[in-house]
Amino acid sequence: MEAKVSIIMGSTSDLSVMEGAAKILDEFEIPFEINALSAHRTPEEVEKFAKGAKDRGIQVIIAGAGMAAHLPGVIAAMTPLPVIGVPIRASLDGWDSMLAILQMPPGIPVATVAINGARNAGILAVQMMALGNPDLMAKFVSFKEELKEKIVKANKDLSEIKFKFKTN
Amino acid sequence: MEAKVSIIMGSTSDLSVMEGAAKILDEFEIPFEINALSAHRTPEEVEKFAKGAKDRGIQVIIAGAGMAAHLPGVIAAMTPLPVIGVPIRASLDGWDSMLAILQMPPGIPVATVAINGARNAGILAVQMMALGNPDLMAKFVSFKEELKEKIVKANKDLSEIKFKFKTN
Amino acid sequence: MEAKVSIIMGSTSDLSVMEGAAKILDEFEIPFEINALSAHRTPEEVEKFAKGAKDRGIQVIIAGAGMAAHLPGVIAAMTPLPVIGVPIRASLDGWDSMLAILQMPPGIPVATVAINGARNAGILAVQMMALGNPDLMAKFVSFKEELKEKIVKANKDLSEIKFKFKTN
Amino acid sequence: MEAKVSIIMGSTSDLSVMEGAAKILDEFEIPFEINALSAHRTPEEVEKFAKGAKDRGIQVIIAGAGMAAHLPGVIAAMTPLPVIGVPIRASLDGWDSMLAILQMPPGIPVATVAINGARNAGILAVQMMALGNPDLMAKFVSFKEELKEKIVKANKDLSEIKFKFKTN
Amino acid sequence: MEAKVSIIMGSTSDLSVMEGAAKILDEFEIPFEINALSAHRTPEEVEKFAKGAKDRGIQVIIAGAGMAAHLPGVIAAMTPLPVIGVPIRASLDGWDSMLAILQMPPGIPVATVAINGARNAGILAVQMMALGNPDLMAKFVSFKEELKEKIVKANKDLSEIKFKFKTN
Amino acid sequence: MEAKVSIIMGSTSDLSVMEGAAKILDEFEIPFEINALSAHRTPEEVEKFAKGAKDRGIQVIIAGAGMAAHLPGVIAAMTPLPVIGVPIRASLDGWDSMLAILQMPPGIPVATVAINGARNAGILAVQMMALGNPDLMAKFVSFKEELKEKIVKANKDLSEIKFKFKTN
Amino acid sequence: MEAKVSIIMGSTSDLSVMEGAAKILDEFEIPFEINALSAHRTPEEVEKFAKGAKDRGIQVIIAGAGMAAHLPGVIAAMTPLPVIGVPIRASLDGWDSMLAILQMPPGIPVATVAINGARNAGILAVQMMALGNPDLMAKFVSFKEELKEKIVKANKDLSEIKFKFKTN
Amino acid sequence: MEAKVSIIMGSTSDLSVMEGAAKILDEFEIPFEINALSAHRTPEEVEKFAKGAKDRGIQVIIAGAGMAAHLPGVIAAMTPLPVIGVPIRASLDGWDSMLAILQMPPGIPVATVAINGARNAGILAVQMMALGNPDLMAKFVSFKEELKEKIVKANKDLSEIKFKFKTN
Repeated sequence: MEAKVSIIMGSTSDLSVMEGAAKILDEFEIPFEINALSAHRTPEEVEKFAKGAKDRGIQVIIAGAGMAAHLPGVIAAMTPLPVIGVPIRASLDGWDSMLAILQMPPGIPVATVAINGARNAGILAVQMMALGNPDLMAKFVSFKEELKEKIVKANKDLSEIKFKFKTN
Repeated sequence: MEAKVSIIMGSTSDLSVMEGAAKILDEFEIPFEINALSAHRTPEEVEKFAKGAKDRGIQVIIAGAGMAAHLPGVIAAMTPLPVIGVPIRASLDGWDSMLAILQMPPGIPVATVAINGARNAGILAVQMMALGNPDLMAKFVSFKEELKEKIVKANKDLSEIKFKFKTN
Repeated sequence: MEAKVSIIMGSTSDLSVMEGAAKILDEFEIPFEINALSAHRTPEEVEKFAKGAKDRGIQVIIAGAGMAAHLPGVIAAMTPLPVIGVPIRASLDGWDSMLAILQMPPGIPVATVAINGARNAGILAVQMMALGNPDLMAKFVSFKEELKEKIVKANKDLSEIKFKFKTN
Repeated sequence: MEAKVSIIMGSTSDLSVMEGAAKILDEFEIPFEINALSAHRTPEEVEKFAKGAKDRGIQVIIAGAGMAAHLPGVIAAMTPLPVIGVPIRASLDGWDSMLAILQMPPGIPVATVAINGARNAGILAVQMMALGNPDLMAKFVSFKEELKEKIVKANKDLSEIKFKFKTN
Repeated sequence: MEAKVSIIMGSTSDLSVMEGAAKILDEFEIPFEINALSAHRTPEEVEKFAKGAKDRGIQVIIAGAGMAAHLPGVIAAMTPLPVIGVPIRASLDGWDSMLAILQMPPGIPVATVAINGARNAGILAVQMMALGNPDLMAKFVSFKEELKEKIVKANKDLSEIKFKFKTN
Repeated sequence: MEAKVSIIMGSTSDLSVMEGAAKILDEFEIPFEINALSAHRTPEEVEKFAKGAKDRGIQVIIAGAGMAAHLPGVIAAMTPLPVIGVPIRASLDGWDSMLAILQMPPGIPVATVAINGARNAGILAVQMMALGNPDLMAKFVSFKEELKEKIVKANKDLSEIKFKFKTN
Repeated sequence: MEAKVSIIMGSTSDLSVMEGAAKILDEFEIPFEINALSAHRTPEEVEKFAKGAKDRGIQVIIAGAGMAAHLPGVIAAMTPLPVIGVPIRASLDGWDSMLAILQMPPGIPVATVAINGARNAGILAVQMMALGNPDLMAKFVSFKEELKEKIVKANKDLSEIKFKFKTN
Repeated sequence: MEAKVSIIMGSTSDLSVMEGAAKILDEFEIPFEINALSAHRTPEEVEKFAKGAKDRGIQVIIAGAGMAAHLPGVIAAMTPLPVIGVPIRASLDGWDSMLAILQMPPGIPVATVAINGARNAGILAVQMMALGNPDLMAKFVSFKEELKEKIVKANKDLSEIKFKFKTN
C-alpha cells in the first residue's frame, strides 16, 4: 500500500488537530502517511520531502502549522503538487498562523482551510483526488448526502425542547 | 397555534445561545418554531424553508450561526421577511461570524445583533411585530419599563458595599 | 403626508452615506423625515425626539453614526420602536462605529447593518413595515426580483470579455 | 461627608472591576459615592444624575461599562465635569468597550484608561483633584514614591532565583 | 471546446481582480467559462449552476466575492467539485471576505487563497487538474521553473543600484 | 504670562494634529507652551521637563505620539500632574499608538483620547482646570451650549435636501 | 564572574515567562543578571541601569514587558547596546505589548521576538555574542543541530499512531 | 572590500523600503551586499545563500518581505548568524507580514523591527557588529547623540508657531 496523501506537521502536539485529516482519509480508504517536519528545524528534510513527494506517488500534501506558520508555503514552493494548509491555533487565537499560511504571494498558492480545520483539509484532498477517480467521486457524493443526517438528528433533538409557545 | 416567528440554527450545540430568543417569545406569548438548518449541509431544505416561510404565516426569522456564518444571509436572499442574524461565538472570539453576518452586500440586509445576542434578537422580533399590533406594543412598553428594575436592584446591592469614604 | 420612517444622523457630513436610505424610501413611496441629532451635543433633543417618535406616527428609526457611535443605542433606549443602526466609516476603517452600534447589551437591541450600509437600512425598514401592509409586501417582492437584473447585466458584460480559452 | 467623586457602573457584575477605583479613593480619604446607572435601561436617571452632579459637589465622574459602552460618553455629554471612562472586558476581550469609550467625537472627551483599569481611573481622579489642593498633591507625590517599593520587592524576589550562570 | 474550470463572481466590478485567474488558465490552455452569480441576488441560479457543474464537465470552480462573501461556501455546499475561494477586498481591507470564505464549518471546505489572490486561484486549479494529467503536470513544472526568472531579473536590477559601501 | 498647560509632541510633523489642542486653549485664553520632546531621542530632556513641570506652574500636560507611543506614559511616570495622551495615526491606522498609550499598567494612568483627538485633549485639560476655577467653569458651560449650534446648522442644511417623500 | 547579558522585567509575575531566556544563557554558560525595573515606577533606576550597562560589561539587554510595554524602548533610547524586546501576554492576548515594543520609531530599534518568546530572546542574544566569539559560534552551530532531534522524536511518536490506511 | 552585512529582499519593488538599511550601513562605512531571493520562488538559492553566508564573512543578515513573509524565518533556520526581519507593508496594512516574521516558534528567532522599518534594521545590525568593535561602538554613540538634533530642529520650528496664548 503506497501513500497517496501526505500529512505533515511540526510537532506531535499538533496531532490532536491534524488527526482530523487522517480520519477522513481512513474513511475514504485512501492510503496516507504522517510525518513531522519543521520548516525551521529541519529545512533539509523538508526540501528532500517536498522534492521527492511527487515521484513517490503522493498526490496531495496536507500541512499544518502554528504561529509564523511557514511549513505549508515552504513545501508549496518546492513541489508541483497541490498543498493544503491548516492554520493551527497556538497563539494569538490563530490569527498569526492563518495569515502566515493564507497570504501567499503570487505564484505559490496554498489551499487554506479554517483555523484547526484539518477535517476539512482531508475532505478537500478527497475532492481533488476524486477529479480523476469516478469511484471516489461517487463515494464522495454519498458522503455529502450523509452530512444532512447531522441536521436531521439536530432537528429531532430540537423537537424535544419544550417552550410554552413553541409550535413544533 | 401557528408559528409567527421562526428560530433557526445550524446544530443543537447552538441551542444554549439561541434559547435566549425563545424565552423572550415565550414571555410575550408569541408562537414560534425552532428548527435546525444548515446553509452548507442542507441547502435544499434551507431554500424550501425560506421560500415557504411567508406563506406559512411566519413574520420574522431569527437565524443564528457561527464561523463563516452564511445561514442568515442565505435565508434573507430567499424571503421578503425581515431576517435577524445572531453571530455565534464558535471560533476567533466571534469576529468571523460577526463579519459574515453583518457585512451583507447592498440589496439583502440582515438585522444583526451582538455576538451571542439571541435575547436581543427575540426582543427585536417583538418590536417588529408590535408595529402592527397595539396590544403587543403596549406589552413591550411595559417590558422596557421593567428593564429598569435590574438597575434598582443593582443600586440596592451597591448600597450595601462598605468603604470608609463611601458616602451612600 | 406624515413621516413613517425617521432618518437621523450626527452631522451633514454623514448625508452622503445616509441618503442611501432616503433613496430606497422614496422608491417605495414611504414618507420619511431626515434630522440631525447628536447623542453627545444635543442629548435633550435626542430624548425629546426618541420619546415622541411613536406618538408622531413614526414606525421605524434609522440612525447613522461614526466613531464611538452612541446615537442608535441611545435612541433605542428611549423608544419602543425598532431602531436600525448604520455604522459610518469615520475612523479606524469603521471598526469603532461597528462595535459601538452592534454590541448592545441585553435588553436594548439595535438592528445593525454593514458599515456605510444605509441602503440596506432603508430596505430593512421597508421589510419591517411590509409585515402589516400586503401592498408594500407585494412591492417588496417585486423589488427583490429586480435585484437579479444586475446579475443579468453583469453576465452580459462578462460575455463580451475575450480570452483565448474562454468558452462562453 | 459629601461625595466629591462619583463612581458609576451598569450592573453589580461590574463591581469586582470598579472597586479598584473605590479603594484608591479610600486610600486618599476622598469621599465618593457608588451608583448603578444604565445609559440604555434608565436613560432618565442618567440624565438626572449627570445634570445634577456638579451642583451636588461632585468634581470627577468615573464611569465603567462593557460591550457597546455608551455610559461614559452619554454622561460626558450632559455635564461639564471631567469624566473618566473604564472599558470593562465583557465580550470580544474588551475591544468593543475600549473603542466605544475612547473614540468620542470632537467636543465631548472621555478620559479613557486601560481595559479593566479602574484603579488607574481612581488615581487619575486624585490627580485632577490635587490640582487645586496642595495637601492632596503632597499625598499623591508620596504615593508615587511608594510605587517603587513594588519594584524593590520584585528585585528581592529575583535575587533569590538561582541559575548556574546568574551573577546577581 | 468545453469549459473545464468555471470562474464566477458577483459583479463585473470584481472582474479586474478575477481576470488574474483567467489569464493563468489561458496560459495553460485550459478551457474555462466566466459567469456572474450572486448567492444573495440569484440563489436559484447559483443552485442550478452548482448542481449542474460536474455533469457539464467542470472540474474545478473558482469563486470570488467581497464583504460577507457567501458565494464560494454556498457553491461548495451544492457540488462535490473542489471550490477555490478568492476573498475580494471591498470593505474592511478584506478582513470580512477573508473570514467569510476561510472559516467554513466542518464538512464543506473552500480552498481559500490570499485576499485578491485570483492568480493563485488559477494556479491552484491547474495543480488540481494536473494530478490526472501528466502533460499538464509537466507544463506546470516548467511554469514553476520560470518563476525564478523574476528573481534573476530582480537581482540584475539590484546589481545596478549604487551605494558607496555596496560590494555587489 | 506663565504657561499652565504644556503641549508636547515628538516631531513637527505631529503639529497639524496637535494644534487642535492649542486652538482650544487659545479659545479659553489659557496660557500654554508647545515643545518637541522624544522619549527615545532625548530621554534626559524628557526627564528634566517632566520633573520640573509642576514647579514651573504647569497644571496639565498634553502629549501626542505615534507608533510605539511611549512619550505620554514616560512623562506620566515622572510627574504627579495629570497627563492627557493623544494617539497619533502614523502607522497601522493608529492601532499601535492607541494601545501603547491607553494600556498603561496599574499605578501610572494616562488620560487617553481618540486617535488624532487633540481637540478633545484640549477640552479635557480645560475641564480639569475648571474644577478649581469657577470663571473657567462658567465659560466651559457656555462652550458646551454652543456645541449644539453645529447640530442646528446641520438640521438647517438637511431641511434643504429634497426627496419626493421627505416630509420635513 | 561578570554578567554579559542583562535580563530585566517589570515584576516577578513576568519571571515564569522570562526564565526562558535565563535557561538558554545557562545552557551556553554565559554569565547574566536578572533585575526588575519599571519604565513607569522607577524611571530613574531605569536610566541609571541603561546608561551604565555598557561600562559594566553588559553586551546585550533582554527586556520583557506587558500591556503598554515601554521598558524595552525606553532602555534602547539610553544605551548603545542592542536591546531584545519580549512582548508579554498580560491583556488583549498580547496585541498591546507586541505593538508597543515592535513599532519603534526610526532611530531606536528594539529587536522584537514573539509574544512570550523569552527563549528565542535568549537564543538571539547568544547569536549576537557569537559574532565575535568563535567558540560560542561553534557551540551555537551544535545547538542548532540538536533542534532537529525534537523532530526525530516527533516522527518516532507519529510512527506509533495507527490508522487503517496509514502507510508509515 | 568584503560584505559584512547582507540585505535581501523578494523583489525590486521592496527596494524603496529596504534602501533605508543600505543608507545606514553606508553612513557607518560597513561593506554590504544586496540580493533578491525568494523563499517561494528560489528556495534552492535561499538555501545556498543562507548556508554559505557565515563562511563568506557575513555577520548579520537583514531580510525584508511582505504578505506571508517567510524569507526571514527560512533564512534564520539555515544559518547561525543573527537575522533581522523587516515586515513590508504589501497587504492588510502590514499585519500579515508582521505576524509571519515576528511569531517565530521556539528555537529560531528573527529580530523583528517595525513595519517598513528598514532604517532601524540597519541600525540594529550596526549595534550587533559594534559589540566586538570599539571604533564602531564609538561611532554609534555619536550617532545616537545626533538623533537629538532632530528634536532641537523641531523645537526651533515649534517656537515659530504663533498662538495668542502660547508662551514660548
